[in-house]
Amino acid sequence: MAGIKEACGVFGIYDLDGGNVVPSIYYGLTSLQHRGQESCGLAVSRTDGERGNVQFHKDLGLVSEVLREDTIRNMEGDLGIGHVRYSTTGASVAENAQPLVLSYIKGTLALAHNGNLINTPELKWELIQNGAIFHTTTDSEVIAFHVARERVHSKTVEEAVLKTARKLKGGYALVIMSPRKLIGVRDPLGLKPLCLGKRDNTYVLASESCALTSVGAEFIRDIEPGEMITISRNGIESNKELSTGKHAHCVFEYIYFARLDSMMDGVKIYDARIRGGKSLAKSYPVEADLVTGVPESGIPAAKGYSEESGIPFGFAFYKNSYIGRTFIKPTQKERESSVHLKLSVLDSAVKGKRIVLVDDSIVRGTTIANLIRMLKKAGALEVHVRISSPPFLHPCYFGTDVPSNDQLIASNHSAQEICEMIGADSLGYMQSDYLEGMAGHLPLCKACFDGKYPMDVEAELNKKIDCGC
Amino acid sequence: MAGIKEACGVFGIYDLDGGNVVPSIYYGLTSLQHRGQESCGLAVSRTDGERGNVQFHKDLGLVSEVLREDTIRNMEGDLGIGHVRYSTTGASVAENAQPLVLSYIKGTLALAHNGNLINTPELKWELIQNGAIFHTTTDSEVIAFHVARERVHSKTVEEAVLKTARKLKGGYALVIMSPRKLIGVRDPLGLKPLCLGKRDNTYVLASESCALTSVGAEFIRDIEPGEMITISRNGIESNKELSTGKHAHCVFEYIYFARLDSMMDGVKIYDARIRGGKSLAKSYPVEADLVTGVPESGIPAAKGYSEESGIPFGFAFYKNSYIGRTFIKPTQKERESSVHLKLSVLDSAVKGKRIVLVDDSIVRGTTIANLIRMLKKAGALEVHVRISSPPFLHPCYFGTDVPSNDQLIASNHSAQEICEMIGADSLGYMQSDYLEGMAGHLPLCKACFDGKYPMDVEAELNKKIDCGC
Amino acid sequence: MAGIKEACGVFGIYDLDGGNVVPSIYYGLTSLQHRGQESCGLAVSRTDGERGNVQFHKDLGLVSEVLREDTIRNMEGDLGIGHVRYSTTGASVAENAQPLVLSYIKGTLALAHNGNLINTPELKWELIQNGAIFHTTTDSEVIAFHVARERVHSKTVEEAVLKTARKLKGGYALVIMSPRKLIGVRDPLGLKPLCLGKRDNTYVLASESCALTSVGAEFIRDIEPGEMITISRNGIESNKELSTGKHAHCVFEYIYFARLDSMMDGVKIYDARIRGGKSLAKSYPVEADLVTGVPESGIPAAKGYSEESGIPFGFAFYKNSYIGRTFIKPTQKERESSVHLKLSVLDSAVKGKRIVLVDDSIVRGTTIANLIRMLKKAGALEVHVRISSPPFLHPCYFGTDVPSNDQLIASNHSAQEICEMIGADSLGYMQSDYLEGMAGHLPLCKACFDGKYPMDVEAELNKKIDCGC
Amino acid sequence: MAGIKEACGVFGIYDLDGGNVVPSIYYGLTSLQHRGQESCGLAVSRTDGERGNVQFHKDLGLVSEVLREDTIRNMEGDLGIGHVRYSTTGASVAENAQPLVLSYIKGTLALAHNGNLINTPELKWELIQNGAIFHTTTDSEVIAFHVARERVHSKTVEEAVLKTARKLKGGYALVIMSPRKLIGVRDPLGLKPLCLGKRDNTYVLASESCALTSVGAEFIRDIEPGEMITISRNGIESNKELSTGKHAHCVFEYIYFARLDSMMDGVKIYDARIRGGKSLAKSYPVEADLVTGVPESGIPAAKGYSEESGIPFGFAFYKNSYIGRTFIKPTQKERESSVHLKLSVLDSAVKGKRIVLVDDSIVRGTTIANLIRMLKKAGALEVHVRISSPPFLHPCYFGTDVPSNDQLIASNHSAQEICEMIGADSLGYMQSDYLEGMAGHLPLCKACFDGKYPMDVEAELNKKIDCGC
Repeated sequence: MAGIKEACGVFGIYDLDGGNVVPSIYYGLTSLQHRGQESCGLAVSRTDGERGNVQFHKDLGLVSEVLREDTIRNMEGDLGIGHVRYSTTGASVAENAQPLVLSYIKGTLALAHNGNLINTPELKWELIQNGAIFHTTTDSEVIAFHVARERVHSKTVEEAVLKTARKLKGGYALVIMSPRKLIGVRDPLGLKPLCLGKRDNTYVLASESCALTSVGAEFIRDIEPGEMITISRNGIESNKELSTGKHAHCVFEYIYFARLDSMMDGVKIYDARIRGGKSLAKSYPVEADLVTGVPESGIPAAKGYSEESGIPFGFAFYKNSYIGRTFIKPTQKERESSVHLKLSVLDSAVKGKRIVLVDDSIVRGTTIANLIRMLKKAGALEVHVRISSPPFLHPCYFGTDVPSNDQLIASNHSAQEICEMIGADSLGYMQSDYLEGMAGHLPLCKACFDGKYPMDVEAELNKKIDCGC
Repeated sequence: MAGIKEACGVFGIYDLDGGNVVPSIYYGLTSLQHRGQESCGLAVSRTDGERGNVQFHKDLGLVSEVLREDTIRNMEGDLGIGHVRYSTTGASVAENAQPLVLSYIKGTLALAHNGNLINTPELKWELIQNGAIFHTTTDSEVIAFHVARERVHSKTVEEAVLKTARKLKGGYALVIMSPRKLIGVRDPLGLKPLCLGKRDNTYVLASESCALTSVGAEFIRDIEPGEMITISRNGIESNKELSTGKHAHCVFEYIYFARLDSMMDGVKIYDARIRGGKSLAKSYPVEADLVTGVPESGIPAAKGYSEESGIPFGFAFYKNSYIGRTFIKPTQKERESSVHLKLSVLDSAVKGKRIVLVDDSIVRGTTIANLIRMLKKAGALEVHVRISSPPFLHPCYFGTDVPSNDQLIASNHSAQEICEMIGADSLGYMQSDYLEGMAGHLPLCKACFDGKYPMDVEAELNKKIDCGC
Repeated sequence: MAGIKEACGVFGIYDLDGGNVVPSIYYGLTSLQHRGQESCGLAVSRTDGERGNVQFHKDLGLVSEVLREDTIRNMEGDLGIGHVRYSTTGASVAENAQPLVLSYIKGTLALAHNGNLINTPELKWELIQNGAIFHTTTDSEVIAFHVARERVHSKTVEEAVLKTARKLKGGYALVIMSPRKLIGVRDPLGLKPLCLGKRDNTYVLASESCALTSVGAEFIRDIEPGEMITISRNGIESNKELSTGKHAHCVFEYIYFARLDSMMDGVKIYDARIRGGKSLAKSYPVEADLVTGVPESGIPAAKGYSEESGIPFGFAFYKNSYIGRTFIKPTQKERESSVHLKLSVLDSAVKGKRIVLVDDSIVRGTTIANLIRMLKKAGALEVHVRISSPPFLHPCYFGTDVPSNDQLIASNHSAQEICEMIGADSLGYMQSDYLEGMAGHLPLCKACFDGKYPMDVEAELNKKIDCGC
Repeated sequence: MAGIKEACGVFGIYDLDGGNVVPSIYYGLTSLQHRGQESCGLAVSRTDGERGNVQFHKDLGLVSEVLREDTIRNMEGDLGIGHVRYSTTGASVAENAQPLVLSYIKGTLALAHNGNLINTPELKWELIQNGAIFHTTTDSEVIAFHVARERVHSKTVEEAVLKTARKLKGGYALVIMSPRKLIGVRDPLGLKPLCLGKRDNTYVLASESCALTSVGAEFIRDIEPGEMITISRNGIESNKELSTGKHAHCVFEYIYFARLDSMMDGVKIYDARIRGGKSLAKSYPVEADLVTGVPESGIPAAKGYSEESGIPFGFAFYKNSYIGRTFIKPTQKERESSVHLKLSVLDSAVKGKRIVLVDDSIVRGTTIANLIRMLKKAGALEVHVRISSPPFLHPCYFGTDVPSNDQLIASNHSAQEICEMIGADSLGYMQSDYLEGMAGHLPLCKACFDGKYPMDVEAELNKKIDCGC
């Protein structure tokens, strides 16, 4: 699937025994890379103060490109945070890379943020009216500024963070590093994920449990919606003042964003996707010889479909993993063949077969149409498409970059029309009502499918504040 | 699988209608990237002579790194060749990147080469005795030099190539570009692959058929062992003077090297690997709940094992595709967890299950041992390992970089011992006799397994020529 | 001379006819490069608003390295500012490069700054008490923040700049770009230089007149101490509310910083240095055959000494202009010869001669000692050293990076002792009383020589505000 | 002066005590950088054979760019050669950078070369007829090939070099490194310079004596025209079989190429240029107030003119040394001002004065015309131009890149015409007859001025061999 992009991944770590956490941040961010490939960075400090100030490095690029050995060789600290980013607010420029590292009334503050606020204009307007200046165009700087202002009249940084969090509307997972504390906060609805792990005397916060595994930490628990966690020399403290009891986890984590080996809010992602495939098999059964998935995103649901239907699971495509990001423009003649560059058909696996082709979503419909054409050219008798999510019909305001309506085939066409347009023999979308079952009966935000937002989005949008930036 | 490396991939293209072939070379090399990731390059010319000389670019790195848009934007030609390289002879330095581009008696000659000769010392000695100088340490320069010398007394470049080929002993696939001809040669035993495709009035030569597909060309046929193909304004000509009738295709193309969607000497690689898995299931049946493969190399044979045994195929690991090549050194504590960085277990898929774990080879045994440990920690009840190739016991002299004996666990231990060392519940290696069946009953070179070399290697080695280089 | 470093150079330009000013900024910064080689940058905007936002680029490195053709090719605007930097406050990191580009209540603000404030802690403390956050460690961000805060209650950006300037203590030349205005401000004492030029309907502000020349602009006049200049569609406006009548121009501009072809506050730099040399000749006459200068900084004063004394001026050294900034460490044996790498003696010019060697200052004394040794080895009979500035004895708080006392040979040794230590036959330092004459009888700040600061520095230092950063 | 370019500089060093020579090569090449700024490189080996093979590094760029600390940190050896290049034959591509490093019958051969042969086509034809292949388009590879071929039938590498040298026609200085010998050869006419130095037990060969000084070596003597020097464990050996007694040193070394602090064939360059200026003063006296030179090339002759005429020497221009090589294109309006970017006038030094302006040559005449205009605009009353060389009228075949006739103002215009075209009040060119006096009465090649070539160039050109490359 292309077109749906996740905002970010965050990571925080504090080794209370004083060990260097830089390699762990590298591992953690590498494990969260699927959540954002545009930019990344880390900030570390030494809490005993002897080794001086916060060090940081961030830039556009993948973790393996930005955090090169020679760059981070001399970075060192027992407390640190990291970030991988795909921009949903703010331009794709190096200045917007995170973590933000700032000096404020109490020294240095570093902040990494996943999510999107819906009241940013209001929050920014308040600051700008008081003479604030902004270096970036990110929500994160707005949040940091409010923390700094609240800090003036607060006893602790936690208190300032809590006061700030009360003002924030939207979905967010924050990881904040003050000189001697690591703080994690999750929005009251639990829209964005954040979890806690431990390795010996080292505490780890991460967007997903796979990042805990990658640094050898045991998963302890998810941060609760509305919970703030503070890790310091005094150990770990929890504050749940922001909790409301109403939860709305982003359904897309279970459908697509989260890594297959992660567990999120008690649900194993692999299991959820298998269940999604099974549900599709129950809703849209078909007689077929092979169930296959569009690599990589459609594979797990295809496996589930196979398990439920009894139709054998198999591979139909080879995916070239060496496609670089800088790409030469093809001539007209070569444009068609460039589709084959990334995915090619395994002829003998599909010839003469009736195929169920599973993917997690349809955006423009051009890719799936190409794949169906390739399958049929290779001798497939029928191609039945099954999609493990409902059609997108509504914008997301909480950090998921759903394409605009005019780009979405589902905005303007019925499933029947789409089926014809892509050349499939049948087409079935996951039904919205079945999503809770897929995601382990968690309370979900499914607004992008059903338009039922878990907070009053319209009220914020109607404020029409022009913050002048 | 780690440790077994292929020499190279070659690509050649000539658009008789005069179209620019540079984008196609980019696509072709991207599709052959799995055959060599150390260096790559291309050379192109315009055969109508109006646009002047040969242009070329080559360097250490992946295709996406070396052939950047700004680099190749101004390259243009209707005739060109390309190369991806993993060094088996010659140091890993930029000077050894290919294609070789040379000026000689008839203008410019460019040459790309996959394979390894066993009589290089003799061939080089002859040249050096006559006062030759060498810029590189590759077989390819030796071959080019002989072509140039033969060219002096030959009517055509084909004649010189043919005279040269008669002297070569070993495995090779050559793609040669003279100012107005594209020539491909394959060694008489067919050790190294080379095939021919066509798109409109454009001819394509490539190590594998997947590269034809990637440029929209139809597969026409494999170049026969000992055949030389010449493509010019006069169309395509074939010369089979070098053919002997004795063939010996490298078995490792079918086990590991070739891409899953390629067809080679009439055999579909996907089918061969499925058959390999089936053969394993017949030879080493076991009661189990799940068949899985080590990503990516073990997956197809696992699928075959599943089909034959009836035990369901499924996934047990998640592979992180963002691991970069520059890697920071882990501390002792983190070393263990770094295994998890690349592959992690999908817990719910393996818990409580008896698992058949398939891979294509065992080199040192450390990786498979780690994976077995991870599976058992996640709750697997049993892990039965099946390897879709026999143990390596003999060196390869034809371009496959088999590790030396002291690094190979199979050199010093029986299968039973290895089974215990890696912590498996049972272990089965593909039997050498079954390889022909796997590879569609082609005549094979299986010398790395059985020591039966298809030419008199010992005679060459005994010559002990010190070519002084 | 090594060891004395200037803070920065600033440049601003506004083409009221709408022409693109980017090439002019490139030329201007290249002409100001001698004032700072650590980092540089530019910001431009289009005032008709049709082409959107401010574009900027800045990084560590020389102008020719940072502002490469491909980088600035797509930058465009009719209003812009630029900066070259050598850090006196703030670390040598890319984050501290200028111009600062910020969004604030009225849109975008860009600011470039030369100089150093003595009340930064107080200014920062005020902001930080109100919850400000800082991305950099520069004075410039503190100034920008005050401008933004004052802007909230001001009618125009000029008013906000003026209110801010009233709070600043120290030396500064500011160039500020708001969406439709270019503003320049000079500190009331005139410690830092700033001048105005014009080319057709284009106005230019620059630290030195040589930058005006480089863009084909005519020098109009120096900005007066305490003057604020605003250039907008309405033309040019001047505000002198900050003027006090007390001036104190930095003497080091005339001795060393400013470029030889600049004119500053009515004094031609070349003339000043010639006068300096003449003054030395009057104060310290000597019988000699040749007057020469240490390249490049000592050459003009040497010429002046020659003119006054009648002793012929000539060259004694060849300077290699290809010495790069990255330098391999020499072995002990080669260390001595590495002195020769940069400067070598022209033997035949010095052999058998009594030489007057002029330089603009002595810091550690090691370089001059080496040069004297080289001259004597080449056959010089006598070497009389003349220094065109008095000995440094006091720190500078206004932006000149004078080495600390323990590095300064003059802090701990008399002129007589230094003369012996460096192996000279005589040594004469410019006397402090003659500096005004050298600099055209301008009122000067000579505090680094005589300790008489033009403002109450001690009062500020005694405040001991720890701004927590 | 722009437009006249030197071919190259060569450097060789052998520390018989086994010390590492890499830093010395770096210093030596930095000191020879003025002879070629296009590419550079070095090759080193360890003669005791224990540390293995030849290491080398070369690329397009300046010494400070190509030989970065991280690049050469791990290079090590007691024998090495280096090269700086400006191309006169062969394209400006990285492949043509030197030293050439080759393997041949006796192991590794490295070669660095300054100069140009007139019989290259013949030499190459002979090789190519025998089946040679060429990687580069340089004379140097042709020379190396002949050495390798002669080596087959020679007892020693010196013998092969000598046999090769006998075939070469043209100007050359060669530095050759075999596994255990350092060899230097100079062409029989002595067209190209080469000298010998010593530091402890280390021998050094270099194009100019300034490179000896830079590594702390004492100048011993120039290599004689036609002499071959061999440095090995046996010490230093000289062979003068090629000497003919007829010498013809390139006059341009004395006028322009060689560094001011070098001594060449017994003549100090500084003295020669002073004499050149004096000669001009005698030939073309004028009443004036100031003698000045175009920086940097005209300065020494200006000093000589001043000494002879008694008119004071002084500066009229400031030269900006920060002009980078990548330069943005100016608009029409800014083109004029871009002249000021590199050189600007020191107004007060020229106002109201009659000026003698000295330079070493006039190529197109545009630069000197601009400078005269600038001087007059600044108030100069008269500008009398004196050129320290005769007009170019004939091509150089020995490695000096004289512009073609259509670019040379002197080809088509008399001195009187040129004087008017450039706006000078008078113009005097050095007379050809006085050049010997300037260069210490050495026998000179002045063919570019008088067309009298020291060898039968026409005969070679008439051969019209098309070597097919």
